[in-house]
Amino acid sequence: MTEPQHAGLDTYRYAVLAEGHFGPETSKTANSAIRYLPARVAAVVDSVHAGRTAADVLGFGGGVPVVGTLAEALPLGPTALLVGIAPQGGRLPAPWKAVLLDALAAGMHLVSGLHFHLGDDPDLAAAAAARGLRIHDLRRPPPDLPVSTGRARDVDAFVVATVGTDCNIGKMTAALQIRDALVGRGVRTGFAATGQTGILIEGWGTAVDAVVADFIGGAAEQLVLRAAAGNDVVLVEGQGSLVHPGYSGVTLGLLHGSMPRAQILCHKPTRACPFGGDGAYRWMPLPSLQAMRVLCEAAIAPLRPAPVIAVALNTAGMTEDDARAAAEAATRDTGLPATDPVRWDAGPLADAIEAARAAMG
Amino acid sequence: MTEPQHAGLDTYRYAVLAEGHFGPETSKTANSAIRYLPARVAAVVDSVHAGRTAADVLGFGGGVPVVGTLAEALPLGPTALLVGIAPQGGRLPAPWKAVLLDALAAGMHLVSGLHFHLGDDPDLAAAAAARGLRIHDLRRPPPDLPVSTGRARDVDAFVVATVGTDCNIGKMTAALQIRDALVGRGVRTGFAATGQTGILIEGWGTAVDAVVADFIGGAAEQLVLRAAAGNDVVLVEGQGSLVHPGYSGVTLGLLHGSMPRAQILCHKPTRACPFGGDGAYRWMPLPSLQAMRVLCEAAIAPLRPAPVIAVALNTAGMTEDDARAAAEAATRDTGLPATDPVRWDAGPLADAIEAARAAMG
Repeated sequence: MTEPQHAGLDTYRYAVLAEGHFGPETSKTANSAIRYLPARVAAVVDSVHAGRTAADVLGFGGGVPVVGTLAEALPLGPTALLVGIAPQGGRLPAPWKAVLLDALAAGMHLVSGLHFHLGDDPDLAAAAAARGLRIHDLRRPPPDLPVSTGRARDVDAFVVATVGTDCNIGKMTAALQIRDALVGRGVRTGFAATGQTGILIEGWGTAVDAVVADFIGGAAEQLVLRAAAGNDVVLVEGQGSLVHPGYSGVTLGLLHGSMPRAQILCHKPTRACPFGGDGAYRWMPLPSLQAMRVLCEAAIAPLRPAPVIAVALNTAGMTEDDARAAAEAATRDTGLPATDPVRWDAGPLADAIEAARAAMG
Repeated sequence: MTEPQHAGLDTYRYAVLAEGHFGPETSKTANSAIRYLPARVAAVVDSVHAGRTAADVLGFGGGVPVVGTLAEALPLGPTALLVGIAPQGGRLPAPWKAVLLDALAAGMHLVSGLHFHLGDDPDLAAAAAARGLRIHDLRRPPPDLPVSTGRARDVDAFVVATVGTDCNIGKMTAALQIRDALVGRGVRTGFAATGQTGILIEGWGTAVDAVVADFIGGAAEQLVLRAAAGNDVVLVEGQGSLVHPGYSGVTLGLLHGSMPRAQILCHKPTRACPFGGDGAYRWMPLPSLQAMRVLCEAAIAPLRPAPVIAVALNTAGMTEDDARAAAEAATRDTGLPATDPVRWDAGPLADAIEAARAAMG
């Protein structure tokens, strides 16, 4: 299912530009492309890690090579260059523009999830037009978004939102892992992509953090209405956190526009403070998991009850013993099933959704 | 204090266009211009109420005449045409464009708070340029907004946010009335205008509902930093409501970007459901005042404690007895001082702020 502005997106083979930023927490877009579109990533460009593989750097991603320059990636046959980072503020690092022009000169399309739209750069736009190449700005919002009115509450599909204690902790990943588990059980499951990486993977969606603020909920509503068609369950990719000082507005607007029936609370046990801004949030400790659960439920209760039904942990970087202990602690604190759907299995999260769906009708 | 894009805004004499919409709840921008800039409103244009006065239609505004056409307003000496409505979705009613072109032809500047920027209309832009006239799009966001990091918590001024049970219930008005009361007591008080009407009145500010969603908090943060300079107290104009299905994202982002020390909860006792969308929110009862107070405090508690310290009622349209009873009920429900700062006096709200400021240092 693709939209006009996303046509072609499901066919590209990528060179992923992450110069100086490739790493577990610093190249979110690159990492998700490697996890979910592994056959379509030809190489990662980052001179810092040149000569290594994705698995060396990330702990997953197999033999995808990291090369030092775009020129070294070209023999591997990429058809598009993907901007592999999503920095706070969303601007293009200045030295990267030359690389993007080189990619266009080499006949590659451009794909970017930055707030700054590559297609609005006159030089890039002209170079692409001259060669008949496409620029996909994944974060460019669709025109004519509505203000949300709560109409997503009326869909027949059982809508589940992934929410979290912080940004950049795996809300999209949890939703995709759960989707795979549900589909494996024969449950027709839609995924509403709300961020640039989800759009990259799914081929459709809207980056709700890039729309004009009055239309956050309306963008979410439109996504849920579309994802619900022909499906039994819809998983809505969450964004940010209700307590993130930079992104909480997006989080609440998305929640209210989506009108979920249940929430899956995502949490990274090793995260002590809100992520981002080069440590700008160190002044603020994250609330406890149980406090976040209470807040997530309170935030939507006046619109509709949407209980948190399970906890999805991101235990990346933890030992197996520590991860097990974290899952047990999460269940002890909240009384809810808790698992890491990447390290272990999304099954318990899918179970929780099926149980909630059966109970709520 | 004006910014380049707002230069001239504090000098205009307005014809206010509200064709078919002039009324207590349907022409928010017009009504605030009449309340706060009465000497600068030459006339309201609305053929439905032609021949009446602002006071006839609104219950305030004295003898400001309502005329049927722009041509009838011209002899009254307007120097600018103000778009007097702020419809949900923020688009210009199609028939109004001809009136705007007529205004330009008559030598008037244009001022608008719509999401749709008049300056982006090629015909309007060309007509204005040809005559050396200005188009002020109050909702056009400033460039290069940051993501908020909570730095507004460090200002010396005591920051107070007006929040509410709904949109369009008088959060800006309450803040302005309180400001006047505090200034009358010699307290240096800044006002951070966060919506198009506040900007119209103050001559500076940012419409936080019109920025790209990731930057709601950053826009608020910038406003608070500026309003705090040289002031003892800052009043932040609230937007929407934490439970409004369409606008809650803006509300929470604004709250977290502002980092207030205290909140004033605004409430309209006659409002049963969220406002807007031609009744689209009738499915949802508003929570009780006390429930809203708990939610407003919970929403910011993980960032900093910011207690609700008073209730500002909007008792427009109620009898004096009903208004008194509503104020008593608000105090009974919440244990907080409650008053209508327009009908009666903002003094009790200013008292609450001074007491909180003294207590919290």
